[in-house]
Amino acid sequence: MASFVPSKEIREATLAALAKRGVALEEIAELTLFLQKDYVPGLCLETCLMSVQHVLEKREVQNAILTGIELDELAERGQLSQPLQTMIEADESLYGVDEILALSILNIYGSIGYTNYGYIDKLKVGVLQRLNDKSSGQVHAFLDDLVGAVAAAAASRIAHHHRGELERAAEQQTD
Amino acid sequence: MASFVPSKEIREATLAALAKRGVALEEIAELTLFLQKDYVPGLCLETCLMSVQHVLEKREVQNAILTGIELDELAERGQLSQPLQTMIEADESLYGVDEILALSILNIYGSIGYTNYGYIDKLKVGVLQRLNDKSSGQVHAFLDDLVGAVAAAAASRIAHHHRGELERAAEQQTD
Amino acid sequence: MASFVPSKEIREATLAALAKRGVALEEIAELTLFLQKDYVPGLCLETCLMSVQHVLEKREVQNAILTGIELDELAERGQLSQPLQTMIEADESLYGVDEILALSILNIYGSIGYTNYGYIDKLKVGVLQRLNDKSSGQVHAFLDDLVGAVAAAAASRIAHHHRGELERAAEQQTD
Amino acid sequence: MASFVPSKEIREATLAALAKRGVALEEIAELTLFLQKDYVPGLCLETCLMSVQHVLEKREVQNAILTGIELDELAERGQLSQPLQTMIEADESLYGVDEILALSILNIYGSIGYTNYGYIDKLKVGVLQRLNDKSSGQVHAFLDDLVGAVAAAAASRIAHHHRGELERAAEQQTD
Repeated sequence: MASFVPSKEIREATLAALAKRGVALEEIAELTLFLQKDYVPGLCLETCLMSVQHVLEKREVQNAILTGIELDELAERGQLSQPLQTMIEADESLYGVDEILALSILNIYGSIGYTNYGYIDKLKVGVLQRLNDKSSGQVHAFLDDLVGAVAAAAASRIAHHHRGELERAAEQQTD
Repeated sequence: MASFVPSKEIREATLAALAKRGVALEEIAELTLFLQKDYVPGLCLETCLMSVQHVLEKREVQNAILTGIELDELAERGQLSQPLQTMIEADESLYGVDEILALSILNIYGSIGYTNYGYIDKLKVGVLQRLNDKSSGQVHAFLDDLVGAVAAAAASRIAHHHRGELERAAEQQTD
Repeated sequence: MASFVPSKEIREATLAALAKRGVALEEIAELTLFLQKDYVPGLCLETCLMSVQHVLEKREVQNAILTGIELDELAERGQLSQPLQTMIEADESLYGVDEILALSILNIYGSIGYTNYGYIDKLKVGVLQRLNDKSSGQVHAFLDDLVGAVAAAAASRIAHHHRGELERAAEQQTD
Repeated sequence: MASFVPSKEIREATLAALAKRGVALEEIAELTLFLQKDYVPGLCLETCLMSVQHVLEKREVQNAILTGIELDELAERGQLSQPLQTMIEADESLYGVDEILALSILNIYGSIGYTNYGYIDKLKVGVLQRLNDKSSGQVHAFLDDLVGAVAAAAASRIAHHHRGELERAAEQQTD
């Protein structure tokens, strides 16, 4: 009789929410590959996808995604009270709670992801371009920032791991 | 034909939301007074209230309050999807989006407010005790953190201003 | 007999430190203009410069700049202990304290500046390109991030003010 | 011929720096135990110590500690330029870079540690009281915040792990 939601349920709800909003994990991985490919020779999409999946295992990341997508969906159905409804529906430039949730995802992997997040958010690379197309009638005020943050966090994770590999290679050369 | 919500509307909605959820600005000011009275001789509630009002003028603070109270109210009416509904309704300890929104309020006034926020949040001083009473049937998962953050931000603001006064007094003595 | 450093001294030291490290406020203002010119019709360098000057008035901004430049200079003179000396001297990609100080500047003006900061940091626009030129023998591990953050914060400030002007114009049309 | 500092060196330098500044890992673990013992039945110092050691494995934590202790030591020897020297030496209340570095440690383990950090920082529990004793002639402007943040991060880590154990126990009861 646990008084909390099992982790498994939260994890599955997060993956289901991304799928329901039309975002494939491979699309997030493509952003990660775009960010990291010049720094990690031979980096492939599969490795990026695994890194994205690892990021999505973190409870803080799941909290941010579930909250942000919920607000997007409520705004899409016109169920928020005013003036929040208009601010989120219009993806108001002075409404920054979406960026705040994105930052809470980046923070888990340290500060080195901040610039990557800002960069792909501005360039509207790949899936981010589709999510920013306001003509669809869908509201993605939060989702585009969350997706960019997960991709940048996965890139930070790869940067840390790649360093580990370089160090092990350097050690073997010394032996 | 502005495509944005006028600032005045957002400001008024923020004050209305706090009032609707039963939080008087004087109660927030009492927390500020509690935090700052040992450092600023002769500090009175009126000065703290004015500082709280200044903090509430900031757009980022308004965004955080409107978003957090909306989620509290939706959870109270059982209108969020699962598992977010249960996490917010139960004020789950591993759900940290409330702390993230609180931090976005603190950040506007710099880092010196972080410890004050943590301190009153743990002690459950004044209005924070009432907001944490789960027996009321009300959901205040976000509101208690937001109120604590506004109080701590107002305390930071007073600390900065008090320094200015000390400096002016010191200059006059030198003259 | 004040036991603290007068604000005026800290402000002047901040401006002096930037000048000493070869960064003109006009160069920071150019980054702000680059970021904001497409959103604010008729925006000129003078307005951006005034916004940069306002950002530099904030105590938290001064703290971050003074601390970062000090570490750059100590590294340049080889006066830090190892391994910090090498990490800062080489502007190590996994050393993220420079990004953390940059974020503390951005936070003062809310979350809407995060993406602007990341964008110009990656593009190495204007003065940021010069600061990243490692061939100079100078160490700017912190300075490039601090300058980018001040420029992005000044852009956020302009975005907030521009909104105010649009609202006043809209009100007058209604009258 | 690696152009970076090996991770092992950074890790060892971090532990050496804490030891040199007179902080035993057991003292940090005691703060963690103080914070978490009411929430995790049977929690012992050994478990807290292991959690502290895990936190200290993180590169971002090491970066923050090495940078903060370096600034403390430089201030202690009077080797910083003015006005930074006075601000850090006097542990100026309006100098918040110490809190900013502390937050970068907390962020790695999510937002649930913010309040714990603020709480022990204000109460000056255990080792934090000794580090705050200005009569020693030592400068610990950064160290006290860093130690409090590591302890609070270790507490967050235990909270996450404890939840995992409760879930596994709940599953077994259901079987």
